[in-house]
Amino acid sequence: MEHTSIDDPTYHAAVVDLLGVLAYGELTAFIRMAVDSDLAPTLSLKSSMAGLANTEYVQYGVLVEHMRSHDIDPDAAMAPFVVPFASYHERTKPRGWLEGLVKAYVGDGIAKDFYREMSVFVDDDTREVMARALDDAGESDFVVGVVRDTLKTDRTASGRLALWGRRLLGEALSQAQAVAVERDSMSALLVGGGVDLAEVGQMFTRLTDNHSKRMTRLGLSA
Amino acid sequence: MEHTSIDDPTYHAAVVDLLGVLAYGELTAFIRMAVDSDLAPTLSLKSSMAGLANTEYVQYGVLVEHMRSHDIDPDAAMAPFVVPFASYHERTKPRGWLEGLVKAYVGDGIAKDFYREMSVFVDDDTREVMARALDDAGESDFVVGVVRDTLKTDRTASGRLALWGRRLLGEALSQAQAVAVERDSMSALLVGGGVDLAEVGQMFTRLTDNHSKRMTRLGLSA
Repeated sequence: MEHTSIDDPTYHAAVVDLLGVLAYGELTAFIRMAVDSDLAPTLSLKSSMAGLANTEYVQYGVLVEHMRSHDIDPDAAMAPFVVPFASYHERTKPRGWLEGLVKAYVGDGIAKDFYREMSVFVDDDTREVMARALDDAGESDFVVGVVRDTLKTDRTASGRLALWGRRLLGEALSQAQAVAVERDSMSALLVGGGVDLAEVGQMFTRLTDNHSKRMTRLGLSA
Repeated sequence: MEHTSIDDPTYHAAVVDLLGVLAYGELTAFIRMAVDSDLAPTLSLKSSMAGLANTEYVQYGVLVEHMRSHDIDPDAAMAPFVVPFASYHERTKPRGWLEGLVKAYVGDGIAKDFYREMSVFVDDDTREVMARALDDAGESDFVVGVVRDTLKTDRTASGRLALWGRRLLGEALSQAQAVAVERDSMSALLVGGGVDLAEVGQMFTRLTDNHSKRMTRLGLSA
């Protein structure tokens, strides 16, 4: 399922799009998480959330460096994704610390699963840098404990956060779809990889399955 | 002018305060700069501002690691400075991208000069970690070009930003004074270092001189 011809312009455009969307996703995640860390009720949580934000920035930096070393202009690669991400973040603005925390875990989790799925269709070099940009090394694990502790004492949080998780999944998938429709290159990557509609369906099933597992881990119904 | 007795409780309290105020200052600078990067008019500027924010986080991390390895609880050390920094940032909330940019350069510059002045009075080990946490390696240099370019085309920016710079100096110094009054340990550090009032006056003169140089570098009157 691998394209080897990096010189094929359609394939090259798809790789540029994929690196651009991932890089811009991480840059905006960095900003959102830094903003949301300011809502943390304790210094220790503020620090953990800031650490999570920082990881996004470091991964963004890895991608920018890779693009530059491959003669890809990072700003041009990211530009098509400014509006979709602004829209996603506008539609999923957390009302308070807990929602921001769940978004950092659940929203980011869906996005990263999606990029991992896409990375199957690219060359080794691109797949390797994507893997580095997607490796979270467990920095977000603290979220599980915080959410579970909250659920023990806050009786309304469970229903509210379960709804919030569903909303995040819906918005993330609808933005992913909007991007895929607008950027032919991404669909071409799937088609060129010999992926049929049934397989795309299976991919979405895997994304929602992983989402459910993350919600369960947080103690929430999916 | 150096204390060597790290076992002296007054001296120890001063070092804890100094590391705490510097660490929390960098954590909040990280958050503020990340927030303000979202106002950037181009992707390239957003990326540069995010990079500046990231440097603050990395330096914060250096201090936290140092405190932990010296049996200092970082959260406890930072706690006294939560309110003063919230007040400073509340009183110097940028109205737009340019003010955020100037704040990152000018406000941060004043703060770091102040910590550099204080680092003269501590032991080698503490001074070394403070130097690492204060070394900006020129990441903020991009600000100079952006502000100077703006001044060429925006006729009202010059007066507005000159005022803004004076405001930042005033707020930074008044917060520094409030902290110094409330935290006896800091004054004790100066007194213990044999610093008299005349020397404190000279220190403030150096701070304002450096501020004027930074403003001049930006093409603004101080």
